[in-house]
Amino acid sequence: MTALTLYYAPGTCAQAVRIALEEAQAPYTAVRMDFASQQQRSPEYLAINPKGRVPALVTEHGVLTETPALLMYVAQRFPQARLAPLDDPFALARMQELHSFLASTVHVAHAHRPRASRWADEPEAQAAMQRKVPANMTECFALIERHYLGDKPWVLGEQYTVADGYLFTMAGWLKSDSVDIAQFPRVAAHYARMAQRPAVQRALA
Amino acid sequence: MTALTLYYAPGTCAQAVRIALEEAQAPYTAVRMDFASQQQRSPEYLAINPKGRVPALVTEHGVLTETPALLMYVAQRFPQARLAPLDDPFALARMQELHSFLASTVHVAHAHRPRASRWADEPEAQAAMQRKVPANMTECFALIERHYLGDKPWVLGEQYTVADGYLFTMAGWLKSDSVDIAQFPRVAAHYARMAQRPAVQRALA
Repeated sequence: MTALTLYYAPGTCAQAVRIALEEAQAPYTAVRMDFASQQQRSPEYLAINPKGRVPALVTEHGVLTETPALLMYVAQRFPQARLAPLDDPFALARMQELHSFLASTVHVAHAHRPRASRWADEPEAQAAMQRKVPANMTECFALIERHYLGDKPWVLGEQYTVADGYLFTMAGWLKSDSVDIAQFPRVAAHYARMAQRPAVQRALA
Repeated sequence: MTALTLYYAPGTCAQAVRIALEEAQAPYTAVRMDFASQQQRSPEYLAINPKGRVPALVTEHGVLTETPALLMYVAQRFPQARLAPLDDPFALARMQELHSFLASTVHVAHAHRPRASRWADEPEAQAAMQRKVPANMTECFALIERHYLGDKPWVLGEQYTVADGYLFTMAGWLKSDSVDIAQFPRVAAHYARMAQRPAVQRALA
């Protein structure tokens, strides 16, 4: 099997894909992009991912982007790792529902702090967006606490999945968004449980 | 097979799920939500979807939300309709990559016009976001034109998939965002091709 190449940057949602690859014990190379020098906007990288963002995963068939797609791809490519309920369409849809919520609502709520310039040019408008981030992130994680996390160890229940690494990654952004994770006991317990997994420790190393 | 129930509102991304259900010739009931009276925020609907948004799909196993998850679920539940490359992990990941881009980048770019209040409280900041929507939607569709749509009839190639209905739905928002679809010849041709499909016409009726 050909080795995969993951383009990532620390602290971004690409961490969720690294965790998935580590959990799968996949053969892969991680290439760190330097956001400080805007390496993700270099012509070399834009030839790999024209969106100029991470993650991007180079496979023998071509390049794939977008975290939810990559998580599902890793789960499908390494089925022996049992990282997704591949044979149960409803359970798989629940996993993908959470992925989509994390990508389209939670990540977007967070991004209005560091990336406000995407959505308005005026500094005052960017500051107004940034002021609303803690309230929006609190609302997102209140819903995750109430609606997604139950009394089981992992977000989909007894079975660990790629969704756990994605949730862990976004929960790790709460502090920088001035939101106290302790107000969400299930999120906090899940975060602590994740941090103890050897694959997670390898991905963060 | 139990009939499905789709909660939707006209003009929203739920249209993509309706198109998928029509293409699959699925047994389903469509329940129209009245956004003018904020029906999506009623206690009755919040009991179905605590996010207070559409689409939501009620199945015999429970409720599912988030358009990308629903599109994949419809494709998996009705495999005879061949609405997704279910047996090809790379092709499926490409489809999901497009779904994720449409949900997390394109839909979000559009939403800053009608839903700017999600991300800032001040009217001036909301107006600043709204001013940037045409440029952001233009950038999104320039990438779709260049990177996703090729010379094949459908966005993934020769095979029609649920992704086509999703792209069609978002392309239908360009006019209200003051973006001329004609500047993207492939997007415009795809839109016209989609509008001729009987399933699409049934979904829009």
